Amino acid sequence: MALRNPLTTLTKRATQSQIARHTASTQQQPWQTRRKMATIVPPVTQDSTSSKGPTAMVFMNMGGPSTTDEVGGFLSRLFADGDLIPLGRLQPYLGPLISARRTPKIKKQYAEIGGGSPIRKWSEYQSSEMCKILDRISPETAPHKPYVAFRYANPLTEHMYEQLLADGFGRGRGGRAVAFTQYPQYSCSTTGSSLNELWKWRQRLETKRAGGEVDEAGAIKWSVIDRWPTHPGLIEAFAQNIEAKLAEYPPERRDNVVLLYSAHSLPMSVVNRGDPYPAEVAATVYAVQQRLGSKNPYRLVWQSQVGPSAWLGAQTSDTVEHYVSRGQDDLILIPIAFTSDHIETLYEVDKEIIVEAEAKGAKGVKRAESLNGSPVFIEGLAQLAKSHLDSGVACSKQMGLRCPGCTSQRCLESKKFFVQQEALL
Amino acid sequence: MALRNPLTTLTKRATQSQIARHTASTQQQPWQTRRKMATIVPPVTQDSTSSKGPTAMVFMNMGGPSTTDEVGGFLSRLFADGDLIPLGRLQPYLGPLISARRTPKIKKQYAEIGGGSPIRKWSEYQSSEMCKILDRISPETAPHKPYVAFRYANPLTEHMYEQLLADGFGRGRGGRAVAFTQYPQYSCSTTGSSLNELWKWRQRLETKRAGGEVDEAGAIKWSVIDRWPTHPGLIEAFAQNIEAKLAEYPPERRDNVVLLYSAHSLPMSVVNRGDPYPAEVAATVYAVQQRLGSKNPYRLVWQSQVGPSAWLGAQTSDTVEHYVSRGQDDLILIPIAFTSDHIETLYEVDKEIIVEAEAKGAKGVKRAESLNGSPVFIEGLAQLAKSHLDSGVACSKQMGLRCPGCTSQRCLESKKFFVQQEALL
Repeated sequence: MALRNPLTTLTKRATQSQIARHTASTQQQPWQTRRKMATIVPPVTQDSTSSKGPTAMVFMNMGGPSTTDEVGGFLSRLFADGDLIPLGRLQPYLGPLISARRTPKIKKQYAEIGGGSPIRKWSEYQSSEMCKILDRISPETAPHKPYVAFRYANPLTEHMYEQLLADGFGRGRGGRAVAFTQYPQYSCSTTGSSLNELWKWRQRLETKRAGGEVDEAGAIKWSVIDRWPTHPGLIEAFAQNIEAKLAEYPPERRDNVVLLYSAHSLPMSVVNRGDPYPAEVAATVYAVQQRLGSKNPYRLVWQSQVGPSAWLGAQTSDTVEHYVSRGQDDLILIPIAFTSDHIETLYEVDKEIIVEAEAKGAKGVKRAESLNGSPVFIEGLAQLAKSHLDSGVACSKQMGLRCPGCTSQRCLESKKFFVQQEALL
Repeated sequence: MALRNPLTTLTKRATQSQIARHTASTQQQPWQTRRKMATIVPPVTQDSTSSKGPTAMVFMNMGGPSTTDEVGGFLSRLFADGDLIPLGRLQPYLGPLISARRTPKIKKQYAEIGGGSPIRKWSEYQSSEMCKILDRISPETAPHKPYVAFRYANPLTEHMYEQLLADGFGRGRGGRAVAFTQYPQYSCSTTGSSLNELWKWRQRLETKRAGGEVDEAGAIKWSVIDRWPTHPGLIEAFAQNIEAKLAEYPPERRDNVVLLYSAHSLPMSVVNRGDPYPAEVAATVYAVQQRLGSKNPYRLVWQSQVGPSAWLGAQTSDTVEHYVSRGQDDLILIPIAFTSDHIETLYEVDKEIIVEAEAKGAKGVKRAESLNGSPVFIEGLAQLAKSHLDSGVACSKQMGLRCPGCTSQRCLESKKFFVQQEALL
C-alpha cells in the first residue's frame, strides 16, 4: 500500500499560547475558526444534514517519545502512573529513580529504531483519515474533528483538553466528544488509566475547580468507545496482514507455520485483581484464527515483562526459543494488542527476538506488519465510531463494572462519571 | 424442560466378564449382537445408506465417583496423573499420600450432594441421545455407538477400549472411532491427559505389546474432536440457561446482574508453559456475551484452586465476596468449562460460595443450570460430530502443536499418533 506520510501533508497544531489568546478573544464555534487556527483538522464543512455535529473524536493511547529527547519525560510519566505500575506510597520517590536509571538504555533503543516512536504519526493519520470517512457515513454528527491524547507523551491529555476548549467545545458551549481508546482490549493499566486521566482533567478544567463561574450544563458531553476486541474491521485487518506474511513462505511450508499472537503482558497482581485484558486479548486471537480458517497452529503469548514480580506467560521470547530449539523455525509473530508500531515491535521483536533466533540459524521467524496505515483497519474504526454515535450509549455495560479486587477510588469516580454521561447524550 | 432420568430408561451395560465370554465365542459385528448384550446402545440398524459405519463415539471426560465408595479410587488415580498434578519423580509416593489424606473430606462432600457425582449418568445420556440424532443426520456413518471413557472413575479408558474390542472394533477388524472430548476448551491437564491415556491403551491393546500376532492395519482408526470452545450449539445452550436464570430477577434489576463465568483454574506453571486453556475459555465467554447482546457486565473468574502454589485468578470465591461486600448482590455464577454438574458446581458453588454469600445477607447470588440434558446442547454435539465426520480430519491443526514449554515425551508421541491417523481415514 502506498502511504503518504501524514506528517508532511498536514500542517502543525497551533501552540498552546496562540490557542489561549484566541479563546479569550472569541466565542466563535470551532468549525468557523478552523482555518485561522491552522490545526491538523481537515477542512470539513457543517452542512444542513448535520443536526448533532460537530463531534470531537479523541484517540487515546499510551504514546511514545517522538524524539530521543522526549524519552526522559515519557519514562518519568510512565513510572509515576499508579494505574500502570503500582508502587504504592513510594511512587513519588521510586518512580523518578527508576525512570532516571532506565532513560539511557531506552534512549539507545529509540535511537536504533530511527530516533523516536512512530505512534504520534500513525495516531494523527488514523484519526484524521477516520474522520474523513465519518463525515461521509455519519453526516448528522459531522464535522468530525480528530484529536490525539497520549498518556505519557505529547500530545498529553491536558493539552488535548485545552485544545478542545480552545476549539470551542465546552465551558458553557456544550459540544460532544468521543473518547476512543486505541487499545482494542481493555485493561485498567491502559484504557482505564487514560480514562482516569481524562476524567481528572475534565474535573480540573470544566468544574468550579477551573476557577470562575462554570456552567456544568455547558460542559463537554463525553462518551467512550472503551473496547472493541473482535470488531470485524480489526479482525479483517489483522488477518490480511497475517495472510500477506504467510504468503512469503513456500506453499509446502505455509500451513505448518506457527502463528504467535503476542500481547504486552500484565503483572499477575493485576490479572488476579480481575483485569479483563487477558480474556479480551484471547477473544481477539480466537476471532482472527476463525477468520483465517484455523489453517495454522497458534499460541497466544505475552511479551515485555520487566522486574522481579510474577507476570502472565507464556513469554514470547521463551516461546520462540523453545520452538526454534525443537526445529520449528517457521514462526510469525503478530502484535495483537496494539494498533501501530512501537518500541515493543520495532525493537523488542524485530531487533531482539528475531535477531537472536537468526543468530541460532532460524531463518523462518518473521513478524506480521502492524496495522499502521491499513485502509481496512481505518475503515473499521469509522464503522465502529458510527455504530457508537448511532447507539446513544455512553460506554459499554462492561465498563461500569469495577474489577473484583479494585481498591482505587479514582476508578470508582471516573467510571461513575462516564456512565452518568448517558443521561446527557 | 421435562427430562427422563436416563438411568431408569436405559438398561445397564454388560459386565466385563459377560463381554469377554461373548467376544471369545463370536466374530459377529457389534450391531448384530446388541440385543443379546444388553448394552445401553439404542437399537439402530445399519441400512443401505451406511457406507462407512459403524462409528464408535467415545465421550472423554475426567469422570467422578458415582458412589462414595468410589471416592478413594477416584482420588488415587487423580493424584497419580502427572499431566494433571505434576509431582515429578515423587508422584508414586506423594500421590497416594495426598489422596488418602483427602479422601474422608471429599467423601463427605459427595455424600452431601446425594452420594455421588452425576457425571456418568449425564455422559451416558448425552452420548446416547447424540448418537440417535447422528444416525438420522449422518446415515452414511451409522450406526453410531456411544461409549464413555473417564480418566479417573468408571468407566475407565481401558474398560472402554476393551468394550470396543469386545464389540467388534479393531484387532484386525478395523473400524472407526471418534474420541470426542467433553471438555469444550483444551488443556493439557484435561483433554491432553485423556488422549495420552487413550494412546497408552491403544499401544497396550492393539500393538504387538498386546501379545500374539497383531495386524496393525486392522486396528481401530481414531480421530479426535479435541476442542470446540465457540461451537454455536454450546454457546446457544449456555446463553439459554443464563437467560432462564436472569428471568428470575425482577425486570428493573435484570440488566445490572453481574455474570460471573467460572472455570476450573490452572496452576501458573501450566499457564506459563503455554497451555491453551485460558485463552479458549475466554473465547467461549466472549461468544456467549455476544450472543446475549452484552446486556450485562461480566467477569471470567477461576475456581477450585488447591495447595500453596500460584494459580490463575481472579478467584471465583474472592470475587463473589468482593462484589457482595460492595453491595453488588445480584450475581449469576456460570460453570463455563464443564458440560454437566459435578462436585465443583453442586458442592463448591452451591453449598459453599452461595451459602456463604447468603449468610452475609446477599440474596441475589444464583447459579445458572449446567448443560446436563439440554436438548439444544445435545443437538449441538451431534452437529459438531457430523461436521467432524464429514471433514475427514484426524484432529485440529492446533492439536499437533505442543506447548512451548512442554517436556513430556508422552505428549509428543501421543500427538504424533493422532495426527498420523489422518492418512488412514
